[in-house]
Amino acid sequence: MSEGTDIVAFLEGKVEMLRFDESYASKAKDHQNNLTKPLKSLGKLEEFAIWMAGWQRKIKPTMKNPHCIIFAGNHGVSSKGVSAYPSEVTAQMVENFRSGGAAINQLCKLAELSLSVVPINLENPTSDFSEELAMSEKDVLYAMQLGSDSVPEDCDFLVLGEMGISNTTSATALACALFKEPAEVWTGLGTGLNDEGLSRKISVIKSGLELHGKNFDKVENILAAYGGREIAAIAGSVIAARVRGIPVLLDGFICTAAAATLTLFDKKILDHCLISHVSTEPGHSGLIKHLNKDPILDLNLRLGEGSGAAIASLIIKSALVTHNGMSTFSEAGVSEKS
Amino acid sequence: MSEGTDIVAFLEGKVEMLRFDESYASKAKDHQNNLTKPLKSLGKLEEFAIWMAGWQRKIKPTMKNPHCIIFAGNHGVSSKGVSAYPSEVTAQMVENFRSGGAAINQLCKLAELSLSVVPINLENPTSDFSEELAMSEKDVLYAMQLGSDSVPEDCDFLVLGEMGISNTTSATALACALFKEPAEVWTGLGTGLNDEGLSRKISVIKSGLELHGKNFDKVENILAAYGGREIAAIAGSVIAARVRGIPVLLDGFICTAAAATLTLFDKKILDHCLISHVSTEPGHSGLIKHLNKDPILDLNLRLGEGSGAAIASLIIKSALVTHNGMSTFSEAGVSEKS
Repeated sequence: MSEGTDIVAFLEGKVEMLRFDESYASKAKDHQNNLTKPLKSLGKLEEFAIWMAGWQRKIKPTMKNPHCIIFAGNHGVSSKGVSAYPSEVTAQMVENFRSGGAAINQLCKLAELSLSVVPINLENPTSDFSEELAMSEKDVLYAMQLGSDSVPEDCDFLVLGEMGISNTTSATALACALFKEPAEVWTGLGTGLNDEGLSRKISVIKSGLELHGKNFDKVENILAAYGGREIAAIAGSVIAARVRGIPVLLDGFICTAAAATLTLFDKKILDHCLISHVSTEPGHSGLIKHLNKDPILDLNLRLGEGSGAAIASLIIKSALVTHNGMSTFSEAGVSEKS
Repeated sequence: MSEGTDIVAFLEGKVEMLRFDESYASKAKDHQNNLTKPLKSLGKLEEFAIWMAGWQRKIKPTMKNPHCIIFAGNHGVSSKGVSAYPSEVTAQMVENFRSGGAAINQLCKLAELSLSVVPINLENPTSDFSEELAMSEKDVLYAMQLGSDSVPEDCDFLVLGEMGISNTTSATALACALFKEPAEVWTGLGTGLNDEGLSRKISVIKSGLELHGKNFDKVENILAAYGGREIAAIAGSVIAARVRGIPVLLDGFICTAAAATLTLFDKKILDHCLISHVSTEPGHSGLIKHLNKDPILDLNLRLGEGSGAAIASLIIKSALVTHNGMSTFSEAGVSEKS
């Protein structure tokens, strides 16, 4: 664990964010246009390579130390029966991540991502947000700082995931509050609720939204209202990556909602993030639209744990290997467009 | 090169096609449902793994010898100015594939695909289909047989690509004839025509369609009308894969059009093929719809040479590593859905 961006200082506006470097992006684009292929024929792959160049400030961007972090947390709202699984599963899955048996372990191996698993105080779930604040501000800042500190020193590409039984409930509340959307439309089946469970989940989220409202102007306040620890940690790690100019792949609905809370601080704070895939949770496509992003994949995933982001990292890697490895027209002696 | 399916015998109905094995698929599905994740939460990845199991007749399907073949051919219709590039580029790109400088080389390395490059009689372009038959039936059968023979003996997963200046022109004519669609709607910019070039391309395709018509009931006749050699070879390799139950990833518009000609022989002949991505050529989404397929990726690619298929093979690989490597609920001691 490194010493990451100081979150309190950041939220007070005392830490500068790294900006996208147009000059590196433009040099990377020139390089793309000399490669042995028709102009723009690699479509989004070309855009990804140029985007990576602008953030990493390298004409030939790298994935030398790509890293995946899974943050895990437990949610008090779980006691309201909003998930198809009991909350013990959070800790059990953390064990599964550690022993290598989960989907994300296989995908990290395939994509050559190193993996950290960061469970946060699992034995103390956050409070039930439908009845009180999920977390104190102090707890929020602790989790955000942990998220920030979890981004390895040498990381040049960050893949984020989460685990937390009932966290689609928190994420839906956060998303509805952020973008003033109705819970009825944005609430989904999570890991597999039945219809009765879905109505219960909607009514729990509505209670929370009535209690805490939808008007927030501070990241730490909205996270305190709806939780949870892993969600706050994701927000913290997205900040750390932005300060250092590390490109980020967000996984599904929960990751996206966590990152979206940061738009309360700055509307353009997520420019260094791509959305890996659009999940089947109804709130996710809504969130993506509000964030004006274009998801890389659409594979009907809804697992979380960073799985979609790990898969999408293979697409970014495809962008880099072509950008960095192809011959130019003159190197290969191929005639250009007539 | 192996001795592949005898194409003449196949087209005479004398060779049996391997069918999808429902029993292996069903066992693979049971296996999926025991893995440590909510039911169906890996979405299309689960479907791909089960589809691979049914074709390979293995509960745990493999990619031990995945192979990419690029067929290359030249087109007489090129003389009509239907491409932004001169036809010498076909041979130059074949050299580029051989020396490792093209996009497909980088992508094959990333996806661990072995690569063969099969140029077919490049110094003798097919005839201009807007004025006469592109190829003799004998030439068609020769190219199809070469395609069939090019699928390696031990191949368990086949990725197909092509190279041929002006081959979107042939492919568009084939697709329009097959599905009785108008050239105006299905013709695209290929490797980067301007508006004038596009009108010329449309009128050349229309001349061809007027000359040869849209009514074909034999694969070899439609291929003889519109060409080309690489397109016929792709059709031959798709047949060889089907006879042996090898799952196939088709690349973009030209590959899909080549494979689609086989539906004249049997409407369900492409059940062992997936469409890797939907390209920006307008005819491609139309073709995909007629074939009732669901493309894996949408990355605005339009390069060809198997590039989109090589990238999509990483998605199939993601499906296999999770299917084959994850722990079951009981192995990992994770509680099941309540």
